[in-house]
Amino acid sequence: MPVGQLIEKVQSACSLDKTRLIVVGVSGGPDSLCLLDVLCRLGYRLLVAHFDHGLRSESAEDAQKVERIAEERRLPYVSSRLNVAEFARASKQSIEEAARTARYRFLFAEARRAAAQAVAVAHTADDQVETVLMHFLRGTGLDGLRGMPYVQPSHEWDQTIPLVRPLLGIWRDEILEYCHENALQPLTDLTNADTTYHRNRLRHELIPYLAQFNPRIKAAIWRMSQNLTADHADLEQISVLTWKSLCLCEEQERVELSYPRLSGQSKGMQRRILRHGLRILRPGLRNIDFEAIERGVAFISSPPRSQKMDWVAGMWLSLQSNRLIISTHRVLPADEEVPQTQDAGEALLQVPGSLDLANGWKLTAELLNVTPSANTQYPSDNNEALLDADHLVSPLTVRPRLPGDRIAPLGMGGHTLKISDFFINAKLPEGYRHRYPLVISAGQVAWIPGYPPSHLFRITPQTTTAVRLRLIRTA
Amino acid sequence: MPVGQLIEKVQSACSLDKTRLIVVGVSGGPDSLCLLDVLCRLGYRLLVAHFDHGLRSESAEDAQKVERIAEERRLPYVSSRLNVAEFARASKQSIEEAARTARYRFLFAEARRAAAQAVAVAHTADDQVETVLMHFLRGTGLDGLRGMPYVQPSHEWDQTIPLVRPLLGIWRDEILEYCHENALQPLTDLTNADTTYHRNRLRHELIPYLAQFNPRIKAAIWRMSQNLTADHADLEQISVLTWKSLCLCEEQERVELSYPRLSGQSKGMQRRILRHGLRILRPGLRNIDFEAIERGVAFISSPPRSQKMDWVAGMWLSLQSNRLIISTHRVLPADEEVPQTQDAGEALLQVPGSLDLANGWKLTAELLNVTPSANTQYPSDNNEALLDADHLVSPLTVRPRLPGDRIAPLGMGGHTLKISDFFINAKLPEGYRHRYPLVISAGQVAWIPGYPPSHLFRITPQTTTAVRLRLIRTA
Repeated sequence: MPVGQLIEKVQSACSLDKTRLIVVGVSGGPDSLCLLDVLCRLGYRLLVAHFDHGLRSESAEDAQKVERIAEERRLPYVSSRLNVAEFARASKQSIEEAARTARYRFLFAEARRAAAQAVAVAHTADDQVETVLMHFLRGTGLDGLRGMPYVQPSHEWDQTIPLVRPLLGIWRDEILEYCHENALQPLTDLTNADTTYHRNRLRHELIPYLAQFNPRIKAAIWRMSQNLTADHADLEQISVLTWKSLCLCEEQERVELSYPRLSGQSKGMQRRILRHGLRILRPGLRNIDFEAIERGVAFISSPPRSQKMDWVAGMWLSLQSNRLIISTHRVLPADEEVPQTQDAGEALLQVPGSLDLANGWKLTAELLNVTPSANTQYPSDNNEALLDADHLVSPLTVRPRLPGDRIAPLGMGGHTLKISDFFINAKLPEGYRHRYPLVISAGQVAWIPGYPPSHLFRITPQTTTAVRLRLIRTA
Repeated sequence: MPVGQLIEKVQSACSLDKTRLIVVGVSGGPDSLCLLDVLCRLGYRLLVAHFDHGLRSESAEDAQKVERIAEERRLPYVSSRLNVAEFARASKQSIEEAARTARYRFLFAEARRAAAQAVAVAHTADDQVETVLMHFLRGTGLDGLRGMPYVQPSHEWDQTIPLVRPLLGIWRDEILEYCHENALQPLTDLTNADTTYHRNRLRHELIPYLAQFNPRIKAAIWRMSQNLTADHADLEQISVLTWKSLCLCEEQERVELSYPRLSGQSKGMQRRILRHGLRILRPGLRNIDFEAIERGVAFISSPPRSQKMDWVAGMWLSLQSNRLIISTHRVLPADEEVPQTQDAGEALLQVPGSLDLANGWKLTAELLNVTPSANTQYPSDNNEALLDADHLVSPLTVRPRLPGDRIAPLGMGGHTLKISDFFINAKLPEGYRHRYPLVISAGQVAWIPGYPPSHLFRITPQTTTAVRLRLIRTA
C-alpha cells in the first residue's frame, strides 16, 4: 500500500480532532512506531506514553529508546514501570491479563490527567483477525466475532475517553513496509513482547494452517468482522430500544423488567436483554458465560417454582408480580420478601396472638394439641414452625439479633451456630441481617422465621402441646 | 444420550404434524436410518425416498437395501436414479453440486406429488459445524455463520414445502450409538458417500486440529450457530420492515427504493436491503458476493456521475429521481430513459423541425453553419449528434429497425455492424430493441439516438453545414 494511501486510511478510521491531545501507547515495536509516525504526519497533538511491564531485562533500556524517539519528534513523553509478574500474583490474574490491566490503567490515567480526547493503540488488521479467531475458538456470539472496534467510546478503563485503534484496517506487512520506507527503526524483539503464547500460536500455526483452505483467510475474517460489527450495532440499537420499553426500574444493585413484555420477545432479544442487564449491574464483566445466558432464557420461558435463581457473577434472577428482577447478591431478588422488625427493640408475641413486622409481614402464634404419632403434620415450608410448648416460656419476644445470639439449627443435634454465621450460610444479604426478626424464648433463639425451628424446641414423640408460629405476608 | 431423550429432542426440533405425510430422504447411512427410525417411533406418516446418484458401483444394490428397509417398516418407498457425473458435465456443476441439485429436485418433486407437509433430511450437529466452518473459511457474514436452519420454510427447491432437519441438534456419535442400541444396520461406506472431499477434510483434519485449541470446539461452534440464527432472525425482521418502508415498487424485473430513506440507514441495514433486493430478483442466487454488496453500498453513499452501474448477477443498480433502482439486464435501469418510437411505422423529421417519440422523448433537427476549424464544438453527450448536412438527404425519417439495417459506428473507419449486433454490444435490453428509433437518411442509418452518429455522416474538416440532431426528454 502506498504511504499516502495508508495515511489517508488511518486518518479516516477514527475521526479524531486535530486540536485536542491524543495519548498514544508506544511500545517501540513496528506497529506503535508506525502509528506514532502517521499521527505525527497528520498533525495531531500527541502525548507519547510508554508502559514498561518489567517482564524482560532490556525493558528499562527500551523505555529510554522510546523516550528518545519522542524527544526527536519534540513530543511530550510519559512512562510508568510496574513489575507485572508481581502484580499478576497479587491480583490473581494471568501475566497477560495483568499486563493488559496495568497498561490500560496507566494509559487512561495519563489521558485523564492530560484531558486527552482519546487513547490510541496500535492494534492492526492482523491483531483483529487473531482476536476474532481467539473468540471463535473459545466459543462466542456476534459480540466476539465482530472483534475490536475502531472506536470504543466506553469501556472498563474509562467511561468517557474513547479507546481508538487507527491501524485496525492496516496489515502488519503494510506496517513493516511503511517502517522500512520511512526508516523507522522498531526496537527488536518487541513484536511479540506483549502477546501471549496463545496469540503467537494462532499467528504462527493456526492462521498458516487455515490458509491452506483459503489463502485469503485473513482478509475473509477481517471483512467478516467489519460486517458483523455493523450487524451488531443495528441489533444493539433495537436492543436498547427494547430495553427501554421493558425496563421498569434501573438501580445500582437491581433492574426490574416487565415479565410479560420480555417473555413476548424473541429468544435472541431475550439473550441480548439479559446481557444488557448484566452489563449494567456488572460493568467490568468480560466474557459473559453463554451457559448463564441460556439459564436466564430458560428461567424466562419456564420460571422455577421458587421464582428465583442464583444466576451468575453474584446475581439473582427472580420473578415477582410480573417483574423479572436482576439483582446483585447485596440485595435479595425482591426485597419485600425479607421480613424485618419494626425497630431495633423487643416486641411481645403472645400465644395465641400475632405481631406486625415491618414491610408487610406478621408473625402469628397459636397453641395446638398434638397426638404423638407418625401423623403429626410437619409444616410444609419454613414460613411455619411447630415448637414444643413445654420448652417455651411465654410470652415470646421478637427482636433483631444481639451479640452472642446463637441458634441450634434443626438436624444438627443441638450443635449451635452464631446467628451471624447462620445468616452468612443462608446467604441472607448483609443489609437485611441487623433487622431480621428472631423469635426468642427466655433469651434463647427459638425460631428464625423463614428457616427451620431450633433443635432445642423441636417437636418430639413426647410433645403433647405445640406452638405453631407462622410468618405471613399481609401486603 | 439416552434413547428417550434423543427422541424427545428430535420431536421438539421441527414441530411437525402427525396427520400429514413427511418425505424422508434415506441414503441408508446411519444418519438417515436413525432419522427414519425416530420418526417412525414418533408415529409420523412417512414416505421413504431414496436417490441413487449412480456414482458408485454398489449404488443400485444400496437402493434395494433401502427399499427392503421401507418394506420391513411397511412404509411407502420411492426412488430415482441419475447418472450424476453426466448431469454434472451437462449442467456445468461440480459433482457435489450436481448431486445435491438432483437429490433435492427429486425429494421435492415427490413431496409435491404426495402433498407432503415437509421433506426431512438427516443433517446432524456435526454437519452443522462443518457447514459453519466451510462458510467461515470461505468468508461469510451472519447469514453463513448461522449454518442450516432446523426448518427452512422457503428455499430454491420449493416455495411452500419446508425442508426440515430434525437431527440438527444430535451429534454423529449419538446417532451411531442410537443405531447400535436399536440394532439398525446402516449400509457400509455410505457415511461419506454424499459428502465432498472438502467436507471430509474439514471433518478429519481441520476439526481435530482446532480441537487442540479447544477440545469442545464443535459444541462451541454449534452453539454459536444457534445464537447467530436467533440474531439473524431478529435482523431479518427489522430488515423486512425497513424494506417495506423503503420500497416504492416491486416487480418481476425491478425494484425501486426511496434513495433518501435508504441512504439514511446504517451500513449494515443498507447491506441487508441490497441482499434482500437481490434475493427478490434472483431467488436462486446462492453465496451473494460480498464485494458486490460493498460496491452497492459505495454506490449508495456516492453514486457515480452516470447514476448507474452494471452490478452483479446480470443486474443494474441505478439512481433516478431519488429512487434507487435494482433491475435485471432484461430491463434498463429506468425504462423512462429509453426512447421508443410511437409505432412500428416511419415518421418524418424535418430539418429544421422536431418529432415526438413515445414515452416522453422527442427528436429535434436544426441546421448549423460550421467553421472548419479545431474549434468545432462537438456534442458533449450522445443525446446530441452533429452530422454533415451535405451527406444527408432531407427530410430525414425516423423508424424502428428493419431487417438488414446496419450502422457504421463512429471511429470504426466505415466498418458496419448489424443494428441487432450493435444493440447487443450496447447492452440495450431486448424488450426495447424493436421500437428503438433510428434516424434514417435515404435508407441509411445516420444516427441511433443516444449513441455516437454514423461514421458515414460525421463532421469532417470539409464540412460547412451541419445538421444538429437532439434527443430531448419532454416529460
